[in-house]
Amino acid sequence: MTRTAFLLVAVAALAGLVAFTAPSSGHAADEAAPIFGIKIPPGYRDWKLISVAHEAGNLNDLRAILGNDLAIKAYRDGKLPFPDGTIIARLAWGYVPSGENNKVFGRAQSFVAGTATNVQFMVKDSRKYAATGGWGFAQFKDGKPADEALLKTCFACHEPVKARDLVFTQYAP
Amino acid sequence: MTRTAFLLVAVAALAGLVAFTAPSSGHAADEAAPIFGIKIPPGYRDWKLISVAHEAGNLNDLRAILGNDLAIKAYRDGKLPFPDGTIIARLAWGYVPSGENNKVFGRAQSFVAGTATNVQFMVKDSRKYAATGGWGFAQFKDGKPADEALLKTCFACHEPVKARDLVFTQYAP
Repeated sequence: MTRTAFLLVAVAALAGLVAFTAPSSGHAADEAAPIFGIKIPPGYRDWKLISVAHEAGNLNDLRAILGNDLAIKAYRDGKLPFPDGTIIARLAWGYVPSGENNKVFGRAQSFVAGTATNVQFMVKDSRKYAATGGWGFAQFKDGKPADEALLKTCFACHEPVKARDLVFTQYAP
Repeated sequence: MTRTAFLLVAVAALAGLVAFTAPSSGHAADEAAPIFGIKIPPGYRDWKLISVAHEAGNLNDLRAILGNDLAIKAYRDGKLPFPDGTIIARLAWGYVPSGENNKVFGRAQSFVAGTATNVQFMVKDSRKYAATGGWGFAQFKDGKPADEALLKTCFACHEPVKARDLVFTQYAP
């Protein structure tokens, strides 16, 4: 093995180790999503819960919507629009029947979170994202950002909830 | 109005005000659940997310499982048994179809959290709760604890997951 090859293997091994030991606080990916230039916010997996949801159909997921402190405060105060700096994170996992739980309940009724599908972010910056209602949009799957074509659809879909500052999710008490 | 009646009205108004302004950090109820003597842990609504689930059937809810810092650390470290002081909270809300979301998706597929149904807690204290695997169990609805008969069923139902220290929910990455 040449010295260069050895170094490459060592770097790859190290990268794998880092990826393996740091999954608890979200992906450490540095790649920014197109159009809005959003990176995965560090520590978003630790944010407080806004609400939960289930999308059936093709999405077939269970989701949790988390918010940074600015988001949570705005929700709890019932104040709109959300202030600049607000970030809302939507995590989603496969919708998986739980045989273990069903056995205990004595019937097939229980669905739990499976593998993570993707994570989306809405970032409020009323100046930077003025053209899209003050929000930037991003989606990542395994740390890789979604492409431009997908992100171009976000704003139009959120417009029906303009009265709630383009945010669908309501706070679950 | 007599002075006593006035005072009663004033106290009732004040109580209403307090109840109205403090919903964000969970119920402020002081009543302990039977058997295990567990009160609602202050600030549990701010805890980090462990996972989400959907129970169909009679429960018909969407749920979020949150944990205090000891719970989250144990999950992320993959360490069992959970240490004394661990508290796991299970929040649940009605499973409500979202007409608003369905309109945007163009099909009936979206279910969101409705009214809160009840909240459950598992509290680890290996000495105090030695007779039930080291866990105390509690359930509250609108701040009122569930009765003894219900809480007596908790431990037996959790026994099938003894290998995971009696905890059903697994961490959603």
